[in-house]
Amino acid sequence: MDTVLARFTSLFQQVADLRRAAELIEWDERVCMPSGGASTHGEMQATLRRLAHEAFIRDEMGTSIHALVRSSDPGSSEGRLAAVALRDYDKATRVPPSFVAEHAETVSASQHAWEQARARNDFGGFAPHLQKVLDLKRQYVTFFPPADHPYDVLLDDCEPGMKTAEVKQLFGVLRPRQVALIKAIGTRPPIDDRPLSGSYAEADMLGFAVDVASKFGFDWSRGRQDKSVHPFATGIGSDDVRITTRWVERMPFSLLFGTMHETGHALYEQGIGKALHRTPLEGGTSLGVHESQSRLWENVIGRSRGFWRHFYPSLQTRFATQLAGVDGDQFYRAINKVAPSLVRVEADEATYNLHIMLRVELEIALIEGQASVKDLPALWKDRMQEYLGLVPPTDTLGVLQDVHWSAGLFGYFSTYTLGNVIAAQLWQRFGAINADRDAQIAAGDFTPLLSWLRTELHQHGRAYQAQDLVERVTGRRIDPTPYLHYLETKYGELYGL
Amino acid sequence: MDTVLARFTSLFQQVADLRRAAELIEWDERVCMPSGGASTHGEMQATLRRLAHEAFIRDEMGTSIHALVRSSDPGSSEGRLAAVALRDYDKATRVPPSFVAEHAETVSASQHAWEQARARNDFGGFAPHLQKVLDLKRQYVTFFPPADHPYDVLLDDCEPGMKTAEVKQLFGVLRPRQVALIKAIGTRPPIDDRPLSGSYAEADMLGFAVDVASKFGFDWSRGRQDKSVHPFATGIGSDDVRITTRWVERMPFSLLFGTMHETGHALYEQGIGKALHRTPLEGGTSLGVHESQSRLWENVIGRSRGFWRHFYPSLQTRFATQLAGVDGDQFYRAINKVAPSLVRVEADEATYNLHIMLRVELEIALIEGQASVKDLPALWKDRMQEYLGLVPPTDTLGVLQDVHWSAGLFGYFSTYTLGNVIAAQLWQRFGAINADRDAQIAAGDFTPLLSWLRTELHQHGRAYQAQDLVERVTGRRIDPTPYLHYLETKYGELYGL
Repeated sequence: MDTVLARFTSLFQQVADLRRAAELIEWDERVCMPSGGASTHGEMQATLRRLAHEAFIRDEMGTSIHALVRSSDPGSSEGRLAAVALRDYDKATRVPPSFVAEHAETVSASQHAWEQARARNDFGGFAPHLQKVLDLKRQYVTFFPPADHPYDVLLDDCEPGMKTAEVKQLFGVLRPRQVALIKAIGTRPPIDDRPLSGSYAEADMLGFAVDVASKFGFDWSRGRQDKSVHPFATGIGSDDVRITTRWVERMPFSLLFGTMHETGHALYEQGIGKALHRTPLEGGTSLGVHESQSRLWENVIGRSRGFWRHFYPSLQTRFATQLAGVDGDQFYRAINKVAPSLVRVEADEATYNLHIMLRVELEIALIEGQASVKDLPALWKDRMQEYLGLVPPTDTLGVLQDVHWSAGLFGYFSTYTLGNVIAAQLWQRFGAINADRDAQIAAGDFTPLLSWLRTELHQHGRAYQAQDLVERVTGRRIDPTPYLHYLETKYGELYGL
Repeated sequence: MDTVLARFTSLFQQVADLRRAAELIEWDERVCMPSGGASTHGEMQATLRRLAHEAFIRDEMGTSIHALVRSSDPGSSEGRLAAVALRDYDKATRVPPSFVAEHAETVSASQHAWEQARARNDFGGFAPHLQKVLDLKRQYVTFFPPADHPYDVLLDDCEPGMKTAEVKQLFGVLRPRQVALIKAIGTRPPIDDRPLSGSYAEADMLGFAVDVASKFGFDWSRGRQDKSVHPFATGIGSDDVRITTRWVERMPFSLLFGTMHETGHALYEQGIGKALHRTPLEGGTSLGVHESQSRLWENVIGRSRGFWRHFYPSLQTRFATQLAGVDGDQFYRAINKVAPSLVRVEADEATYNLHIMLRVELEIALIEGQASVKDLPALWKDRMQEYLGLVPPTDTLGVLQDVHWSAGLFGYFSTYTLGNVIAAQLWQRFGAINADRDAQIAAGDFTPLLSWLRTELHQHGRAYQAQDLVERVTGRRIDPTPYLHYLETKYGELYGL
């Protein structure tokens, strides 16, 4: 290893270890921590994050990164490492520590206020907090060079390199087609999904979910699964990737599909190339690409006919009482039922993106100053009516439902839709180069798919930004066509459109 | 808060957070970590320990501690904080970082070699590693001012302030009386403990153990219990104290007594005064005092007639088949059976200290240069014969049985015996000031005992060293008399001596 790279590596490993430790502490907080340990965890977390930040922004690190950029070929793996490190360093050094501290305090208070406001359906109690968060977000934008659009800066933190204009254009294509699809579905008789809400036992569902995760390729020697209030996946480095799930009595299958979803995230993290471990290139390249992996396994695979052709017999054996008299086709139809609803996290595949668009549009309007905080509840209701034909009876079921804004996560939402779109694009490409794709899934053989994802996507970690990565793999930049084709074909067939 | 103290506090909190994080990572490694995460954990652990060490030994910290020592009254709580901080700082700054690194590497290799040697009964394969560890230990001693005895330096790391001469004197009193007691017991008919090795279910035993821990006063909102290969207790600060247990089929009651033992450690950690949290005074004052708490709850309470007068009926109900026809007296006798054996961790109350004395005597001889590594197996066998009348047929069951030496833990063993002795001394004192002591235990009421321990011991954390602490509480320095009285009375009655 040349000395410039060796110097950078040794400096960076300390940052990586501190960040990994902070991830582990956060996992522990959500999975293991006794309630009385909250302050202790908060203190540890703050100290580790601060030390990781300080270790990363010091001048020595900057010097080392600049030397690495100068000494490496931009097209080489070392060059890509240098470019990502420089981008991260540049972003990290632009934001004053005093701002970081104020932001942390503000979102902590704001999340607390949001929880109470949501419980009491009291948007007015949350509004001043949201205003503060919004003010900070607008201030944050000023730390960076002027962009085409101020929202670009926020988007870039979640989806590096992505532009607001690209997202708007994508949404412009998706919106009318998805609204039309849902309207058409609304004219058809509803699917009967009562078999999904029978009395299922948690342990049995978990057993089935674990079997599926194993079949997908989850490496249990480098990961584990636990329960938590909100399901999530986290990588304490790529060799210790942990997913969680939850059991909701009235939605027994959410444990299964949630496990497939988090397994998708985990397979990405577990697939990062060995050479990238403990470097700035470790981890997923963007939230959108990460979400493409979770959605691919949860929806494109996990809600497909082929998958259930293979798995339904064993599901039915396991739940002989609950699924007595329900054939594979009925089950497939039930898990793909489309019905506009108020709550994003329970939305089906066909309506999900509309929940996202609504949020992203409001977020952009807030950042632009075209909308104000006090108008949000009304704007939310109007747009829900327009996109999904529903009006939330309360703000709790409307503008107060998501944690993101209270947590300062502006720029996050669009990545869910980007994930759906990229997943379909990858799926199409995998079919184009592999004529046996559908037969493999219907045989429960996921090895070819995972191997392909590993080679094309996972191993590269953060080396390529989303657009470039998708173009390398599929020959096209992010493109809504395959997704719309997937959606319209699948639901056209299901609803006889 | 005055500015000198405030300055020190803000510097130290970073050290405390890093150490707590390292503790949590270690807990995770032993309880949760998937096997593939070992390198990741090793790296994180090394980085956090190094950063904690660096943050503690920097000049700024030294200046701040010296200022605190100068500005505070030695008899005040601030003065005690300053004294402990100075002692820790002095010790930490005397040991060169290069030595710390070499020690870490050596014991890592040595533990690995020990595992293999133990599995193969191959002391010769372990000897060169042990020699290296011993050489480092002797080098370590040279970093400190000359002591009365070189072993004092090693002892001080586990039992601050304790002298080799004090330990030798204590052992000199205990040894002949314990050897005589065991010989006398050997002339009596053995106790029948077959009821303890029936077929018990792990979940039932765990349920009973958890009930007992709760009754003792374990605060589950500030702690948890899990399974691990070797049981242990750890405090991630005093508000998050975790214990573990294990299930060994052939010794079903070891889960119960092990839980009582770890609960004793945990009660100490949970009882540290709020004002000491996140300061150098947080934690137990010495390994011996820590062990006094575990032994008090496990043995003095948990193997007493009074305890089982209260708990045996519920135990018998829970294990109706296994304990059918076994009355409370038979059960009490069974859990207190004395029988010299080869393995320390399975030794009974009467023989345990002799296992310890043997180890400490050999350790001191090694440090003094009076014994050499190659002589250890023979010395071990001779002394086992002398103390317990047994000769291990293999080194695996002899000199290779404990991890301590391979891990560089010289100076550790005597704290087990100190714990036994201090426990009896505390117990006697608690009886002297509380005439209802035995009635309370027999009624399953542990609140008076725990409250007393909290007030007299736990809350002070590291503020007083073991000898001073014991003297404050009992009016005497560490004294073997109550322990010998406890042992001879209990086992005299049990064996009709």
